[in-house]
Amino acid sequence: MATQAEKLTLENTQLKDIISHAKEYGFVFPSSEIYDGLQAVYDYGQNGVELKNNIKNLWWKCMTQLNQNVVGLDAAIFMHPDTWKASGHVDSFNDPMIDNKDSKKRYRADVLIEDKLDELKAILFEIKKKQDQIKDHIPDGPWTGETAIESIEKDINFLEDTLKIGSPEAFNNAFKQVDIFESGNGTANWTQVRQFNLMFSTQTGSVADESTTIYLRPETAQGIFVNFLNVQKTGRMKIPFGIAQIGKAFRNEIVARQFTFRMREFEQMEMQYFVRPGTEMEWYQKWKTIRMKWHQVMGIPTEKLRFHDHEKLAHYANAAVDIEFEFPFGFKEVEGIHSRTDFDLTQHQALSKKKQQYFDNDLNEEGKPYGNYVPYVIETSAGADRLFLMTLCNAFTEEEVTEGEGTKTRTYLKLHPTLAPVKAAVFPLVRKDGLPEKALEIFDDLKFDFNLIYEERDAIGKRYTRQDLIGTPFCIAVDYETLENNTVTVRDRDSREQKRMPINELRTYIGEAVSLKRIFENL
Amino acid sequence: MATQAEKLTLENTQLKDIISHAKEYGFVFPSSEIYDGLQAVYDYGQNGVELKNNIKNLWWKCMTQLNQNVVGLDAAIFMHPDTWKASGHVDSFNDPMIDNKDSKKRYRADVLIEDKLDELKAILFEIKKKQDQIKDHIPDGPWTGETAIESIEKDINFLEDTLKIGSPEAFNNAFKQVDIFESGNGTANWTQVRQFNLMFSTQTGSVADESTTIYLRPETAQGIFVNFLNVQKTGRMKIPFGIAQIGKAFRNEIVARQFTFRMREFEQMEMQYFVRPGTEMEWYQKWKTIRMKWHQVMGIPTEKLRFHDHEKLAHYANAAVDIEFEFPFGFKEVEGIHSRTDFDLTQHQALSKKKQQYFDNDLNEEGKPYGNYVPYVIETSAGADRLFLMTLCNAFTEEEVTEGEGTKTRTYLKLHPTLAPVKAAVFPLVRKDGLPEKALEIFDDLKFDFNLIYEERDAIGKRYTRQDLIGTPFCIAVDYETLENNTVTVRDRDSREQKRMPINELRTYIGEAVSLKRIFENL
Repeated sequence: MATQAEKLTLENTQLKDIISHAKEYGFVFPSSEIYDGLQAVYDYGQNGVELKNNIKNLWWKCMTQLNQNVVGLDAAIFMHPDTWKASGHVDSFNDPMIDNKDSKKRYRADVLIEDKLDELKAILFEIKKKQDQIKDHIPDGPWTGETAIESIEKDINFLEDTLKIGSPEAFNNAFKQVDIFESGNGTANWTQVRQFNLMFSTQTGSVADESTTIYLRPETAQGIFVNFLNVQKTGRMKIPFGIAQIGKAFRNEIVARQFTFRMREFEQMEMQYFVRPGTEMEWYQKWKTIRMKWHQVMGIPTEKLRFHDHEKLAHYANAAVDIEFEFPFGFKEVEGIHSRTDFDLTQHQALSKKKQQYFDNDLNEEGKPYGNYVPYVIETSAGADRLFLMTLCNAFTEEEVTEGEGTKTRTYLKLHPTLAPVKAAVFPLVRKDGLPEKALEIFDDLKFDFNLIYEERDAIGKRYTRQDLIGTPFCIAVDYETLENNTVTVRDRDSREQKRMPINELRTYIGEAVSLKRIFENL
Repeated sequence: MATQAEKLTLENTQLKDIISHAKEYGFVFPSSEIYDGLQAVYDYGQNGVELKNNIKNLWWKCMTQLNQNVVGLDAAIFMHPDTWKASGHVDSFNDPMIDNKDSKKRYRADVLIEDKLDELKAILFEIKKKQDQIKDHIPDGPWTGETAIESIEKDINFLEDTLKIGSPEAFNNAFKQVDIFESGNGTANWTQVRQFNLMFSTQTGSVADESTTIYLRPETAQGIFVNFLNVQKTGRMKIPFGIAQIGKAFRNEIVARQFTFRMREFEQMEMQYFVRPGTEMEWYQKWKTIRMKWHQVMGIPTEKLRFHDHEKLAHYANAAVDIEFEFPFGFKEVEGIHSRTDFDLTQHQALSKKKQQYFDNDLNEEGKPYGNYVPYVIETSAGADRLFLMTLCNAFTEEEVTEGEGTKTRTYLKLHPTLAPVKAAVFPLVRKDGLPEKALEIFDDLKFDFNLIYEERDAIGKRYTRQDLIGTPFCIAVDYETLENNTVTVRDRDSREQKRMPINELRTYIGEAVSLKRIFENL
């Protein structure tokens, strides 16, 4: 197994820089790196875990604490295997696989086709550029370049259609019609496409008569569906209401790429909102708006976010949209909002033979015939690791700044103070004359309120730089003046300006900048 | 698969009551209950998840935020399989299993012996009681009862020794020497004892040449060990320093019992503290004291906690102690403090061929020859689910209270306010005359700071009771007087006393009671 860094296909230097930065400054390490890593699995380092926890905490509190009718849940990763029969994952959570008969290597058919599409588009671009350059010299009448363009455009349309259809038959047909070679001078000698289930399985129960194949959940949503009535009844919830959950999910991804964007082990933040049938579109629109706003108030610029409506709906959905962020590798999904109808609850009802219905007394009070129904569901499903990567990419800043007579590039993480791993660093200017003691006094006083760093080594400029690199919004420096009048300098990460402030104002100053409440109030 | 509630062997009514309470009030549900559950796996409901998160958050902040030299980490569940070779789990993380040849059922040999011991002790107790009752009537000289007592005591000593030795040979010998019958009129016709590995395994990588057996981590500690140098270097940590982590671990427990005490999927809160060799006993003692104090300040009475030194040390440890809590089923481990020497890092160094050493510049500064060494490790390892169960058991209170002319039993959860799932409930006295609007105004104002409940249904007494049952420390009632002078009544969960308070004092009043800071300052 090679390290992920080596295997990653990076077309993009900026992503490479961010990955290096993440490793170098304790945000993300390749998993089990001393054993050369484990593909598509990552560990969060001392700064990464704080950033990720802050994102998760913000989401959790926005969902459960600000909404009177949304409560939390923490279902186990292990679930009864029938859960995944009902949800359709056992039968159809598959990726199309194909083997090269010569190299014996296995690939995802759709990814090979996507790669081929990229290649064709690049060639087309080059030919068209060429054509443009030489257009004055082309004689009238048919020109061979145009035939090439036509042929390539035909292939592009055909392959794009293939991806839309997405069936093994369509893929097989594509591999017959178009020459798709294995990369690295490989052949086009392929097997038939077969379906490969993405769920990880294991055996539970050591007692002979109990041993069972169970799955690592491929999504957290089903943990909410099977607990729908437990929560509704014990929490006396009235429709509409939501259940929110943060937890790990696992998919045996064939092609895992782009750092923490697509991992085999990842973390979801999902909320299922149970509504009266017929009102789902209204709630779908509401949650679309709420969730987009959330990404904006956590510091993502509006122009880097967009909605992308699903062209092809999953079998369980009657509406679906992605919120996409502009990563260095293009606009990609960070969250999905789906109108899942009553599909999941109905499936569980059928398989478990246990009614998954809600008694709607309000219908009665409204003078309509009251009754039981299976609720419809609007789901908001965000990837914690994707939000982490989005936050990191958005914060990663390289600026030209003047230094002495020249300029240099200053790198820092422009993280929202509420999300920053460390809220403030406390420095004594020098390691003598009682300055360290004074600085530690401030550290000990503020540490109950904020995650802080105390640092006394190296020149203070170097210490500022180190805090910039991990996104610490404030640096508090204790100097000789501090000993005289109990004031310190507070340096702002983004402006690099320093202002003098009494020690007893620090708590309020930092507190207001990093408080969750300020984000809440903007929602 | 039967539900856990059915399968649990409960000698104890109080535990039964707590389990029912946990389910009834949204703390813990059996996993996948609509499919009749999955043994030894549980889901945390809307109140359970908040309580558990509060415990985790308290631990995390006490570890990382209050200690200048302890940082966090979040390593993945999936790790390179060589990790578990180095740690010894592949070879020796086993339980002794035995099959009954007649019933074909499989058991844990040590558990059968423990059960036999319980049975023998019960018989012994009965015989001795009988002997006591009839002692005046026993003629002088040998009495058959005494022979029986002797024989039983011999068996008890023998079986206790067997458990201490714990080898398959010792177990086999015990099953030969003592008649141990399968429960439910089964036979004593047993196979030999075999070792069964407790790790769950799965296959990762769909690409043919990459497919590998990997394990679900059986402990989080190794995620810290393999990242030791990554964290030390990128965080510029100086020894002594610690790395703290919260995360899921998995063990295919053969006999899972006592609710969330022993589960197949569980959550650990571990901290590895890296120290200079030779100083480990000093740090071992320090962390013992710190951790015991932590349990006390989170609200567990001193008399319900005790240290229990390990009689038999694991191969990697040179000292080990458990912190035990008195559960309804006896004193049991909730946290372990272990001096793990340099065992793990040395093992990883040997297998990975990557030096796991620290360059100790301080030794140089102290005038001693400086050099590289593999640090020693003190580990504090707590079970989040066990702490949850401890907190729940400790909070579960049944009190006789007077009601009208008689008395009734009042049940409530006496949770530390900082840990309570909901901090306050807001009630309008009645559902009219603008009282709900006023109550919602208060709710909306305070919801940014605290997790609250708003409730307007049913009589107010019933609403108080419901909050008692989930451990909400404060209930705020809006009545007609509120509309006149902006005061509310605040009812205290434990004393049930109500006092009148201006609305604008609520934030500070609740804030002080529930703040983490108050706990921090007592540490």
